[in-house]
Amino acid sequence: MSTTVIILAAGKGTRMRSSLPKVLQPLAGRPLLGHVIETAQQLQADNIITIYGHGGEQVQQAFAHETVQWVEQAEQLGTGHAVQMALPVLGQDGVSIILSGDVPCISQATLEQLVEASQATGIGLVTLTLPDATGYGRIVRDNGQIQAIVEHKDASEAQRQIQEINTGIYCVSNAKLHQWLPKLSNDNAQGEYYLTDIVAMAIADGMQVASVQPERAFEVEGVNDRMQLAALEREFQSFQAKQLMQQGVHLIDPSRFDLRGSLKVGQDVRIDINVIIEGEVELGDRVEIGAGCVIKNSKIAAGTKVQPYSVFENAIVGEDVQIGPFARLRPGAVLANEVHIGNFVEVKNTQIGVGSKANHFTYLGDAEVGAGSNIGAGTITCNYDGANKFKTIIGDAAFIGSNSSLVAPVTIGNGATVGAGSVITRDVADHSLAFERSKQLSKDNYQRPQKLKK
Amino acid sequence: MSTTVIILAAGKGTRMRSSLPKVLQPLAGRPLLGHVIETAQQLQADNIITIYGHGGEQVQQAFAHETVQWVEQAEQLGTGHAVQMALPVLGQDGVSIILSGDVPCISQATLEQLVEASQATGIGLVTLTLPDATGYGRIVRDNGQIQAIVEHKDASEAQRQIQEINTGIYCVSNAKLHQWLPKLSNDNAQGEYYLTDIVAMAIADGMQVASVQPERAFEVEGVNDRMQLAALEREFQSFQAKQLMQQGVHLIDPSRFDLRGSLKVGQDVRIDINVIIEGEVELGDRVEIGAGCVIKNSKIAAGTKVQPYSVFENAIVGEDVQIGPFARLRPGAVLANEVHIGNFVEVKNTQIGVGSKANHFTYLGDAEVGAGSNIGAGTITCNYDGANKFKTIIGDAAFIGSNSSLVAPVTIGNGATVGAGSVITRDVADHSLAFERSKQLSKDNYQRPQKLKK
Amino acid sequence: MSTTVIILAAGKGTRMRSSLPKVLQPLAGRPLLGHVIETAQQLQADNIITIYGHGGEQVQQAFAHETVQWVEQAEQLGTGHAVQMALPVLGQDGVSIILSGDVPCISQATLEQLVEASQATGIGLVTLTLPDATGYGRIVRDNGQIQAIVEHKDASEAQRQIQEINTGIYCVSNAKLHQWLPKLSNDNAQGEYYLTDIVAMAIADGMQVASVQPERAFEVEGVNDRMQLAALEREFQSFQAKQLMQQGVHLIDPSRFDLRGSLKVGQDVRIDINVIIEGEVELGDRVEIGAGCVIKNSKIAAGTKVQPYSVFENAIVGEDVQIGPFARLRPGAVLANEVHIGNFVEVKNTQIGVGSKANHFTYLGDAEVGAGSNIGAGTITCNYDGANKFKTIIGDAAFIGSNSSLVAPVTIGNGATVGAGSVITRDVADHSLAFERSKQLSKDNYQRPQKLKK
Repeated sequence: MSTTVIILAAGKGTRMRSSLPKVLQPLAGRPLLGHVIETAQQLQADNIITIYGHGGEQVQQAFAHETVQWVEQAEQLGTGHAVQMALPVLGQDGVSIILSGDVPCISQATLEQLVEASQATGIGLVTLTLPDATGYGRIVRDNGQIQAIVEHKDASEAQRQIQEINTGIYCVSNAKLHQWLPKLSNDNAQGEYYLTDIVAMAIADGMQVASVQPERAFEVEGVNDRMQLAALEREFQSFQAKQLMQQGVHLIDPSRFDLRGSLKVGQDVRIDINVIIEGEVELGDRVEIGAGCVIKNSKIAAGTKVQPYSVFENAIVGEDVQIGPFARLRPGAVLANEVHIGNFVEVKNTQIGVGSKANHFTYLGDAEVGAGSNIGAGTITCNYDGANKFKTIIGDAAFIGSNSSLVAPVTIGNGATVGAGSVITRDVADHSLAFERSKQLSKDNYQRPQKLKK
Repeated sequence: MSTTVIILAAGKGTRMRSSLPKVLQPLAGRPLLGHVIETAQQLQADNIITIYGHGGEQVQQAFAHETVQWVEQAEQLGTGHAVQMALPVLGQDGVSIILSGDVPCISQATLEQLVEASQATGIGLVTLTLPDATGYGRIVRDNGQIQAIVEHKDASEAQRQIQEINTGIYCVSNAKLHQWLPKLSNDNAQGEYYLTDIVAMAIADGMQVASVQPERAFEVEGVNDRMQLAALEREFQSFQAKQLMQQGVHLIDPSRFDLRGSLKVGQDVRIDINVIIEGEVELGDRVEIGAGCVIKNSKIAAGTKVQPYSVFENAIVGEDVQIGPFARLRPGAVLANEVHIGNFVEVKNTQIGVGSKANHFTYLGDAEVGAGSNIGAGTITCNYDGANKFKTIIGDAAFIGSNSSLVAPVTIGNGATVGAGSVITRDVADHSLAFERSKQLSKDNYQRPQKLKK
Repeated sequence: MSTTVIILAAGKGTRMRSSLPKVLQPLAGRPLLGHVIETAQQLQADNIITIYGHGGEQVQQAFAHETVQWVEQAEQLGTGHAVQMALPVLGQDGVSIILSGDVPCISQATLEQLVEASQATGIGLVTLTLPDATGYGRIVRDNGQIQAIVEHKDASEAQRQIQEINTGIYCVSNAKLHQWLPKLSNDNAQGEYYLTDIVAMAIADGMQVASVQPERAFEVEGVNDRMQLAALEREFQSFQAKQLMQQGVHLIDPSRFDLRGSLKVGQDVRIDINVIIEGEVELGDRVEIGAGCVIKNSKIAAGTKVQPYSVFENAIVGEDVQIGPFARLRPGAVLANEVHIGNFVEVKNTQIGVGSKANHFTYLGDAEVGAGSNIGAGTITCNYDGANKFKTIIGDAAFIGSNSSLVAPVTIGNGATVGAGSVITRDVADHSLAFERSKQLSKDNYQRPQKLKK
């Protein structure tokens, strides 16, 4: 059976007070709509139709790389009107799952159950049972069968006691959508076409209406303002943290952990407080990430310990590496096993061989460092001449004295030594010592400058 | 009508276990009493009388810059006694609002309602309805009219069911204060003069007693120990965070955000976890503040992105600037538009022109940098000779090689280039190259030092 | 009366999904079992018998320094079976307190009450009253006397209303243990020997069963998975934070504070958000620790202010010192009073005298610095020649120019000055100026490199 996902994404989101269309607001680092599209893809939908409106161009650009069919809703005349826009491109066969672009956490599992439950009836919806349902549309049942959805303001006192509500998520046969949607009326206080009315039409047609409940309540929470966005962010983060703990990750404080992307972990990974993981990250067995680290799009192999306040982006780190605190790995940093990167060290577009060390105040940019080399404190690869970038090659077992400047392009040979404070502009041969230094001079009884009168 | 605010601030706060008088303990970076004085000023009180006692000199010094009338309460004989101290300086006309220096969050709006409500009656108080009122003085009403305030220990079983409590915040006509306060008695178990007794006097005089409730319960919370201080800090921070979210700020985690001062924001400002804002800060449209940044008394213009763990104090930052991670802007840092300040860079008392870059390990102190210049990694302005500080001037489109030391006073001209590792002590002309360097020497087959035997 | 503590520590903890035995999982930086052993030591137990099983060698190694008697439980056949293993080494006199290695927070006070309460009866247990006791073994009482412990699955509807549960913590006379344990049966669904059965035996013997409740519920919480470990970590941290606040510490946010060890404090210590304290730390009067600092095994004297994101390990810091932000004190850093250590400064195995300053980008390793000296930005002690480490001695009132490299072993005399950018390889006499520098040269109208075509 062919499945279409229709996503309502035309709203402006005035209460966000933002220039960004609401469905582009990020949750866990990704636009709300991105979460919904990903879920649609997980369902292996044959077609994903997104109804856009406010900020449509911006929205389409943000998802230009996704296979999505865009349909405009030029005026926002209600949820029913939004789905009407899809009719011209919607086949007669199969079913449609109707989602909202601002309800980002609906799960694949819940929707699969919805499709399953709706197969016999031709229409189904996701409902939720709440302790306090005030304000929501209530699900009125008789002998367990859905009889009606009654809006709060239209509900009788008895109906207001009902705790089961409509979440606005449906699965409907396309044939029925073609039959019902043209008949929607906007003869109501708001003058809008409500999608909810198709439930009444189904019941009028003598159909049963299936329903499922989500495993977790936050799956059906919508986002209308910054407070709701922040609250949902925490619920989503808490859910992700729990999943990782179930996989065996030792999170020192799950309420101070942020995952904005995906994290693959080995056994006995330990993550201290306030770590942020962004993009796609892999952490091998026994990896320890210290407090406050920010790790983006990186792979860290088994046994590596990262000390607090280290920031990684697009880095690949070997086994049993020691890094930080206050280390910065920028894109293209590739560290072999047992490398040591210490405090206030920046590595960019640089490979470092097994067991090499750069323990303090070093900038390694556009470099290749062999195995077993020691890069002294304050060493800087001068990779930029103001117009072009050049490479620094350092061999195996080299020793670079502190405060050296290596002016690229330059090669320091295997086993070579560079004296402290040298500016190295010419290649250094294997096993040689290079230095650039004047004679140390002195003046006795030197009179230090005095405080000037102002 | 003239309005006086009387603030009771004489208590020692023994349970804080501090050498600081209680009203000087900080909430959101400002003394408790400072919050109350600010609210009194917002009310445009004609006179603010603060009753001091313990640590009185310290307290007065802390607010030496405020227009406050100080009245001593040498012995602490109760709240009624405290207000008695104000009588000699209190006129007969107008009303007094009586506040506590350790109830810092009472709002202007609540007090304006209190004054309004008290206008007809001559006396009013702020009450609060609590789920569990155990321990508090209860508001006994008959037909809605306040009949008495009954302390918990004196309350009947029926009265103990009352959930409305006295908060100790009053508005009273000055004439009545002059009439009632001298009549207070200390004939009670504690031997203290209770301000509460004026309510009984008012009722005995046949007066009605007005009351209002605060919008938010934490407005009337007092601080007696560190746990209460910490709890109120969180409630206040949560309230401030909510206000910012209502203005459209994207707070990634409102429970990990601290504002200790005031924050003005443009549209679409995003603030990541664990940011601290201190003093007066302005953030323009689309400014992004990375995790863990501490921003104090600074202005950051539109489009600027600050990466994690950057610390600013008294800095002014232009538009579309890129900063951090691990950047430090100290007082007098003034960055023009499109400047880049990278990791481990410190800027103090320095102006940097449009588009200039200092991307790594640089100290710019007491400097002026023109537009479009590139400051290499490890550059240091040697601004201090041990006694005096001097300026470094760098022109437009200059290129300073890595690991350079610029010994101030010194000027690097427009378009000038400084070779890596140079110590520059004399001015460098426009468009010239300056360098300070010896010949690079080498020894072949150099024997590296061996591990010494110990 | 002789007291033995028997700790059940044989479980694997499959649900932790870890290669580490469960009792070695850390809570507040210390293995679960370590907490229990410490409590046993506080009780001045004559003997601590630990029943090990899974990962026994690892467990014993982790506590090799503790006086603990190890008894193996080769197969895990239930809690009763575990205690049976101890019988061969358990005397007939005195009492045993039976604890679980995965219930780490049981307090000395609760156990002392348990011993006291059990003295008359010969058997006692710790019980807990819960709002919802579903799943737990219930304490059935008649006229206040314990009649039975009934497992949830065996409980009648009435018994399931009982809120008092068994925590599995006992105090039993050793004579009775010798009498009862051999009679335990494994004739039950799980085929295990349950320690709980001794309560029925006691009652059958006509004995009364004493009971006490812990002061705090989390004392009896066990750890079976990562979620429970994380939850207990927060409860324990919250408890520790409260204790510190009661001592007068100003914790800006007690829910963002981690103490993994012990902290001694003076008066008016202030600790900002997200600070981590590890090992044994002492903070003197008025010490302020900025946001995000990590302080391990260090002593900081009165009046010292540490700015955000400073990391200390095994450091000793004097009075009125100013440190940070982004400072790193490594083992052996010893700072006298009024020292200033600024941003991006690393100090290792170095003593610094009164009032000396190293404000920016400095590495001081294996050094001694006198009083009143100024270490310029970018100064590096070159303490390592690739094989050996040497000392740098800097006298009083010395001035080290920026970007200097001090090649150890080397001595800089009192009042000596080192010119900026110098590599100092020979000793510098008192009051002399030393410098290593070439002549500054220049080329006019220098043509900067152009962008290469690729």
